[in-house]
Amino acid sequence: MTEYKVSALNKVVRGPKRASYDVDLINKILDDAFLCHVAYVWNDQAIVIPTAYARKDDKIYIHGSLKNRMMLSLLEAGKASVSVTHLDGLVLARSAFHHSANYRSVNVFGSVRKIEDSEEKMEALKCILNHMVPGHWDNVRHPNNKEFNATLVIEISMDTASAKVRAEGVNDELDDHDKPYWAGVIPIKQVVFDAVSDNDLPKGVKVPQAVLEYVEKNK
Amino acid sequence: MTEYKVSALNKVVRGPKRASYDVDLINKILDDAFLCHVAYVWNDQAIVIPTAYARKDDKIYIHGSLKNRMMLSLLEAGKASVSVTHLDGLVLARSAFHHSANYRSVNVFGSVRKIEDSEEKMEALKCILNHMVPGHWDNVRHPNNKEFNATLVIEISMDTASAKVRAEGVNDELDDHDKPYWAGVIPIKQVVFDAVSDNDLPKGVKVPQAVLEYVEKNK
Repeated sequence: MTEYKVSALNKVVRGPKRASYDVDLINKILDDAFLCHVAYVWNDQAIVIPTAYARKDDKIYIHGSLKNRMMLSLLEAGKASVSVTHLDGLVLARSAFHHSANYRSVNVFGSVRKIEDSEEKMEALKCILNHMVPGHWDNVRHPNNKEFNATLVIEISMDTASAKVRAEGVNDELDDHDKPYWAGVIPIKQVVFDAVSDNDLPKGVKVPQAVLEYVEKNK
Repeated sequence: MTEYKVSALNKVVRGPKRASYDVDLINKILDDAFLCHVAYVWNDQAIVIPTAYARKDDKIYIHGSLKNRMMLSLLEAGKASVSVTHLDGLVLARSAFHHSANYRSVNVFGSVRKIEDSEEKMEALKCILNHMVPGHWDNVRHPNNKEFNATLVIEISMDTASAKVRAEGVNDELDDHDKPYWAGVIPIKQVVFDAVSDNDLPKGVKVPQAVLEYVEKNK
């Protein structure tokens, strides 16, 4: 098992038994989500923004317009914090205090770099699109020069990271077990539905196999 | 319609036609989610962390342990940025460039205050618990003194906020409409499943009505 080095930055202090620094687990949690939340500093204020992303090896790619405030601020700072969270359930305990959630979350701390090389930039855009639906890049019109030049692509190199996972039942005080309170877990899942085709498609254009497979897998 | 005042801080620059400053819409988006992402500054670095929350009027409540780094940093800064995002669909366009997502997101910029008053603190804890399952506070053992004193509760007073909503189909270039590319939307929804009761409940303890109703509504 390869692990990220633990420092004051990524060390999970609250609930350390739920923490992991396992690279494979962290990558899995990142790959299973579509949106991340990115923090940046603007005018001495921490701001958080949701955005699409993709991962390849130990790099995360995000993209946006050339004037995107979040991305320009990240480039200026040279570093980024990214959070990805899956909510898997509500944990309803006997006691208010032990209410919790089941979740899988990752925090990434990385170095930020603008991707200038055209080939590398196109690869990153392909990676972001295929992160939505694996293999879908082959089904779409690729960026023309105008679109390509209007897009800013940033690489966040994962310097360190941590995962935190809760995937269990209720942890109440033993004293409370005999009391007439109910306790249990409400499971939660993000599901996808059948693709709704655009009304204006030429005759004979069908839903691509990659899309059908993605929906089937995530229903 | 009451709106938040628009400033450089909360103004939506990217995709302004999707922006809203409507208080009711912002509150609805906040109330429909369970987790938020909070940004804070630690050692000159912006960090983002997911956490549970609740809203009452123009206040957001979060809670944690007395030594929670995120909460202590927020108190020190006196201000917080909070993001709540619902992913509603993947928008798969004919062109890579016009790929997008359907979503409802809110960014809150607020002033931070530690809740010291016992009555106010208990009300905030009740609010956070009822935000999980409406009315469930009445079904649980309330915090004892030890638990109450071990919990830090913070109020984030919403000074300003913005919403951004995309809820539509594909927006491709007209030139691309005749080309043999498929386009469409994959709807996404977070669903809940039937509550799984703890194994160690006393005989006769049933799933509370509030839990049954919550599950029914969010299935």
